[in-house]
Amino acid sequence: MPYIQTPDNIPGIRGLMNFRPDAALALNALAQALLVEDSPLPRSERELIASYVSSRNECKFCMTSHGAIAAHLPGCDDDLVKAVWDDYQKADISDKMKSLLNIAGKVQQGGKFVTETDIAAAREQGANDLEIHDTVLIAAAFCMFNRYVDGLGATTPDDPAFYDIVGRQRAAEGYMTKSVLMT
Amino acid sequence: MPYIQTPDNIPGIRGLMNFRPDAALALNALAQALLVEDSPLPRSERELIASYVSSRNECKFCMTSHGAIAAHLPGCDDDLVKAVWDDYQKADISDKMKSLLNIAGKVQQGGKFVTETDIAAAREQGANDLEIHDTVLIAAAFCMFNRYVDGLGATTPDDPAFYDIVGRQRAAEGYMTKSVLMT
Repeated sequence: MPYIQTPDNIPGIRGLMNFRPDAALALNALAQALLVEDSPLPRSERELIASYVSSRNECKFCMTSHGAIAAHLPGCDDDLVKAVWDDYQKADISDKMKSLLNIAGKVQQGGKFVTETDIAAAREQGANDLEIHDTVLIAAAFCMFNRYVDGLGATTPDDPAFYDIVGRQRAAEGYMTKSVLMT
Repeated sequence: MPYIQTPDNIPGIRGLMNFRPDAALALNALAQALLVEDSPLPRSERELIASYVSSRNECKFCMTSHGAIAAHLPGCDDDLVKAVWDDYQKADISDKMKSLLNIAGKVQQGGKFVTETDIAAAREQGANDLEIHDTVLIAAAFCMFNRYVDGLGATTPDDPAFYDIVGRQRAAEGYMTKSVLMT
């Protein structure tokens, strides 16, 4: 049970969002801008960054949800998500993506952990300013979402079917539809 | 110099926001919802929570900016901001505010650091669900903003006059005006 009384016992971040719909609107607009709208990074890679940072923050709800969303997008599947959680250096992803996950992991520890060397390594692999910016902001945003979910003790479902439904829905619809905001 | 090429060398988070205006809109909408719009917590207390979390993340830009905003709002001044940075237990704030800053400090470490005991202590001091929710989400959001600013190496001005101007402007106008979005 979450630490606060959320409507209808909806699990995860949705219960918290229904408790505070005006903040929820801004949070979902941010997720939509970072994870769905135009970016040089494919949606599956952005969701993988989100899931990876959540795994480092040990936020099971966000890690599993965004892993499932990634797996429902082109260029990704469940095995790749698990490989990134286990050891992204050994995962079947590009060297550029590895250099971006390195930056995301530094952001998870704290902004000042990112060094010029980390940025230079990403540039050497072909990452441009926009890709570096989006990686840092996605990683930073999930340091917020993870803390929101676990800091309020949101219910975390155990049933894999729950996450598969969430993954399919968000992959198809994004974050600004009625199914996100109301359920 | 920031790690990415921001327009017009605008310092702090504004330079980053001008680089990515669509994300900036969502980030400012979130700040507006959490720090300006209706809440049982006065605006000065919400800005103090933001500044306190930023001080724990050693993000000088956010700590000083939001401290200055707090100091320009009713019920706060520079001395109180400094007292909260130094040791909030000794600051001239309510026991309820101290219990909320305790929760904010736990969120800064990670969502799972918040315990039922922390929540119960806040309730004993009269904090309700909405105040607990807003404290957790503000603290979580500044774990994002701090990482965004420092993870991209944004320029942090040294001149106190810069922060005084920012503080006066945001206290008067909030986060959704032209002066926020364009400068």
